[in-house]
Amino acid sequence: MQSFEINKSDLLKIKNALEANDTELQRVLGEYHASEIAILFERLTPEEREKIINVLPSDIASEVISEMDEENHPEQILFNLHPEKRSEIIEELDYDDATDIISQLEEHEQEQVLEHIDQEDATNIRALLHYDEDTAGGLMNTDVIKLNANLNKKDALEEVIRQSEEKEEFYTIYAVNDRDILQGIVSLKDIIKSKPDVMVHDLLKTDYVYVKAEVDQEEVARLMSQYNLTSIPVVNDHLKLLGRITIDDIIDVMEEENTEDILKISGVSEDEELSGNWKDAVKSRLPWLIINLGTAFLAASVIRHFGNLEAKLPIIAAYMTIIAGMGGNAATQALAVTVRRISLSDLTDAQAYNTVLKEFLVGMINGAVNGIIVLVVALFYDANPMLGLVLFLAMTGNLIVAGLTGASIPLLLKRLGIDPAVASSIIITTFTDCIGFLLPLWLASALLL
Amino acid sequence: MQSFEINKSDLLKIKNALEANDTELQRVLGEYHASEIAILFERLTPEEREKIINVLPSDIASEVISEMDEENHPEQILFNLHPEKRSEIIEELDYDDATDIISQLEEHEQEQVLEHIDQEDATNIRALLHYDEDTAGGLMNTDVIKLNANLNKKDALEEVIRQSEEKEEFYTIYAVNDRDILQGIVSLKDIIKSKPDVMVHDLLKTDYVYVKAEVDQEEVARLMSQYNLTSIPVVNDHLKLLGRITIDDIIDVMEEENTEDILKISGVSEDEELSGNWKDAVKSRLPWLIINLGTAFLAASVIRHFGNLEAKLPIIAAYMTIIAGMGGNAATQALAVTVRRISLSDLTDAQAYNTVLKEFLVGMINGAVNGIIVLVVALFYDANPMLGLVLFLAMTGNLIVAGLTGASIPLLLKRLGIDPAVASSIIITTFTDCIGFLLPLWLASALLL
Repeated sequence: MQSFEINKSDLLKIKNALEANDTELQRVLGEYHASEIAILFERLTPEEREKIINVLPSDIASEVISEMDEENHPEQILFNLHPEKRSEIIEELDYDDATDIISQLEEHEQEQVLEHIDQEDATNIRALLHYDEDTAGGLMNTDVIKLNANLNKKDALEEVIRQSEEKEEFYTIYAVNDRDILQGIVSLKDIIKSKPDVMVHDLLKTDYVYVKAEVDQEEVARLMSQYNLTSIPVVNDHLKLLGRITIDDIIDVMEEENTEDILKISGVSEDEELSGNWKDAVKSRLPWLIINLGTAFLAASVIRHFGNLEAKLPIIAAYMTIIAGMGGNAATQALAVTVRRISLSDLTDAQAYNTVLKEFLVGMINGAVNGIIVLVVALFYDANPMLGLVLFLAMTGNLIVAGLTGASIPLLLKRLGIDPAVASSIIITTFTDCIGFLLPLWLASALLL
Repeated sequence: MQSFEINKSDLLKIKNALEANDTELQRVLGEYHASEIAILFERLTPEEREKIINVLPSDIASEVISEMDEENHPEQILFNLHPEKRSEIIEELDYDDATDIISQLEEHEQEQVLEHIDQEDATNIRALLHYDEDTAGGLMNTDVIKLNANLNKKDALEEVIRQSEEKEEFYTIYAVNDRDILQGIVSLKDIIKSKPDVMVHDLLKTDYVYVKAEVDQEEVARLMSQYNLTSIPVVNDHLKLLGRITIDDIIDVMEEENTEDILKISGVSEDEELSGNWKDAVKSRLPWLIINLGTAFLAASVIRHFGNLEAKLPIIAAYMTIIAGMGGNAATQALAVTVRRISLSDLTDAQAYNTVLKEFLVGMINGAVNGIIVLVVALFYDANPMLGLVLFLAMTGNLIVAGLTGASIPLLLKRLGIDPAVASSIIITTFTDCIGFLLPLWLASALLL
């Protein structure tokens, strides 16, 4: 199979079916997987989406709604539905997904939705609405399979089958005591394979990993990836079992965090939605550009200082921009490698030292090679060996500075508790610009005038 | 729980235990999870790692080896072990993990390892060694639970229990016909809940997603994320079941791909290992820097062309670097948002058009705001209103170019089948540098001289 991509014929088919009657629309929709319909939704109007959700069976409709991109506002579709259809769809949703969607509504709208659904569902969703959506509590599903550790094999199996009636699939069975305090994890396979007189507590795996509800979602992702978990139980301070987070929810967190990393390193606020409008984009990027402008003035003041030299040697301006620009490029390289390395694992002092040393070496070699090229150009093009020497020294020096700052600034920021992805590139560009202007101008003043 | 971070006391404890006797070492290691030992390995010498693997029970040792960072060469530890211990560890490994590790050895070393292990294991690993490690075949595990679709409930349950004896956990049960052709997916829950006279083929879910063995791992990751799968069956051209890929293997793929994205957008070869040595770093980054140097000469030639102006108005050089630099920053912002958007989903023509239009608007507004700031500075600092006007126009113009190219170049490259993350930033910097130099110089020539 191939991953689904929208093509014109699919879209045309759906659009035509939307014009025809409901039976035809149902027939056409039947050809698509719920995830595919959610993707097709990106190209439809809100009215068309609502019409489709209305004709789909509730189980498929709920899948489509839970797979919809947040930016297409699944909560509005849900809110606009007939209360009966809405209850059916919410009943089919996992509690965590239902909560995510409902949490996007205004408070009075939330109440309106929760009043008309099954009482148990409403209680569960209300409980989940209390957690910040970026924490373990906000990610978890309360709908777990849990067994009292004192059950025997026969009762345990019956209980698992009873509890799993309503669940699509389950990963792990949790064992609790009478007060719902987590005792351990037990696998269905072990229950099935066990002798008839075995109790649940004989089968427990007790060296499991858990999280508290208030833990940040990034930390949950790190834990699950580090310990290779497919699910993780969420508990309160007294180790009472509250729910569990499954790996599919974490994949979305990882995608989100990775988008944020790329944006931050490029000077875009991590909150900017990729498909947001121009107003949000201006709000997210302008502050950063203005800070950059301030540091650019700082670097340019270096040039002002040598105004005298430029009048006598106008050619230096062209070379100076080359050297500053190359410093920026080399620093970006060192920065990307270091930032990514920090975000995947913490570095020890020795590793940090080695990283800076390595980038110093890389900067020196890359600087020397590029310096020789510039020297050769200056020889052939400007027939000025002394200018060539100035440029060679300036290029090598600036690329060493680029390597040193590209590696050490993010390491330093990390130690100061500042997110290295956000602040590093602005500090580093300032360095490579200032040094990139200063070195050729100062060397030229000293050696050429 | 917190994710595990190495601290000095853990490391000291392990180092001391390594000096003491094996019993003490075993006792200390018993306090750690296999994943944690794998993390501690980063700080130990190869000899210390080997000693630890030798005293650990084979099941824990195999977990540690499969969790070790590739850069610490688990294959060498495995190869240096006593053949008997080695066989025990390989027997405990999943076939896909064993294959990944063994594939890193030289061919004659591979043979040496495979000769001394269980025949069935060797056959399975040999089969997996044929697949490219970046494809579905290279990721899959052949050790699946499969049932003949013609089994009845009792035989099916017995068969599941028999096959699962050797497996830590399993996600999905696959139903096949007599020739191992995939017929569908069946859940253990459904088998348990079914009536005694039901056959496996009555319980099949047939609208499942599968991949062929030669499909690229990125495509597998996209499919599993798009359809929210925890596992996916891998088949050959005749739909014969070859194995299955589980979500935990895909998480590693996603981490890898995301690292590559960040590196590529920063001008680092995607193959550079984050903790690689300086030689690899030079090899990975120097070619890119030299290409950049070429384009920098192109941009600098614009400045050469106006050498005349600079001699008369040296101050223009300082402002010109500010305008070119700000163009680079704004273009990087537009580029990061667009590249990330492309990598998460394909854009239609209409979406592409809207993206470019949005970036044009954002560039114009951000350009005008920054242009006003530069204008004010020129008024107060240089008391030159005409210079201020020149700089305002040049800043606005260059940030419009930055937005337009930052959005349209990656979209264009994507349509041409070129990876937008790799080539975009070099093209865009060239544009913003050239225009950033050209606009203020040309406007100043026209309006100020």
